[in-house]
Amino acid sequence: MSESAAVRRGRGRRPAAEVRAAVLEAAGRILLRDGMQAVTFERVAAEAGSSKTTLYKWWPSPGALAAEAYFTHSRALLDFPDTGDIRADLVTQLGAFVRWLKESGAEGPVSQLVGAAQLDADLARAWSQSYAVPRRDLAAERLRIAQRQGQLRADADLHVIVDQLWGACYHRLLVLKVDFDTSIVERLVDHALYGAAPRAT
Amino acid sequence: MSESAAVRRGRGRRPAAEVRAAVLEAAGRILLRDGMQAVTFERVAAEAGSSKTTLYKWWPSPGALAAEAYFTHSRALLDFPDTGDIRADLVTQLGAFVRWLKESGAEGPVSQLVGAAQLDADLARAWSQSYAVPRRDLAAERLRIAQRQGQLRADADLHVIVDQLWGACYHRLLVLKVDFDTSIVERLVDHALYGAAPRAT
Repeated sequence: MSESAAVRRGRGRRPAAEVRAAVLEAAGRILLRDGMQAVTFERVAAEAGSSKTTLYKWWPSPGALAAEAYFTHSRALLDFPDTGDIRADLVTQLGAFVRWLKESGAEGPVSQLVGAAQLDADLARAWSQSYAVPRRDLAAERLRIAQRQGQLRADADLHVIVDQLWGACYHRLLVLKVDFDTSIVERLVDHALYGAAPRAT
Repeated sequence: MSESAAVRRGRGRRPAAEVRAAVLEAAGRILLRDGMQAVTFERVAAEAGSSKTTLYKWWPSPGALAAEAYFTHSRALLDFPDTGDIRADLVTQLGAFVRWLKESGAEGPVSQLVGAAQLDADLARAWSQSYAVPRRDLAAERLRIAQRQGQLRADADLHVIVDQLWGACYHRLLVLKVDFDTSIVERLVDHALYGAAPRAT
């Protein structure tokens, strides 16, 4: 039976995977539009056309649902280009991240999610294990290729490079609370690649 | 009249500055020992020997009191050495910061303060304007001296260097939620100074 046939059989019969996708889509939409406080089981259930009971069964808290919705919505951001030029690819990837924060309205929800994670161990675990650390690993993979090709030093610490690019953006967003835009991207990448000390002559 | 004479005259008569200092000290002690949730006006007043009414008058919320107590307690951390060697001074300063987080028990309270700041605009303003941005400016001052001395490139972005040192630590603490220790310090400094790309030969 095709998926659309299942849908035609009526709401109550939608396959679980389909309901789950609809719920995550609705939660992500609410999160990006109205912020984390707005992601309640009641509103998400209403907007996804599912039952609140289902949501209670699948997610321990609205925070956990909001986090998973964020991961799902930002998945496209994880794609890391490989044009063979690590500088260009870092500029592309980090630029997409800054645009996602600053131009797609993710800035508020991301701050609220990371903020709530500091006060909620379950959310912290979900955020770290399902999103932040896998993202770092993906970036490190691309950096490792560049390292093998001699575009990064053999003793470069790939995790430190990630800290110095994405971490710098989070630093301004969460800790300094100062504004920034994509004009920061090339500067961050060049500092990470070439450093701040005078180059050897 | 000496300050100690004022104390001898009894609790009710202590000068405001002295009460304020005692309250901040008590709040800082509670914050570092038991975390942010434990910083309530009731407990702080009891531990500082002051009245709850005074605390309500001086601070808009327990969060604001906790933030100011944290700034007061961590003030010593702001001292930035100038031995004439920027690499050594960055290692000293960043090392003190990491030890403060990881060995003096500040890690939890700092996470909770920054976390709460994402959900509380007043706390965010206090944290940013009274602590995070002034700290960045102090670091940038020391970096500027090094830049004038030719130890940093003339076109180096001093704020980016701060992002890539302190921001990297906050990235692991708040976003990645992975453990780290002082072994990260020299690596962060060397990456910030010399970059990850192969050095020109």
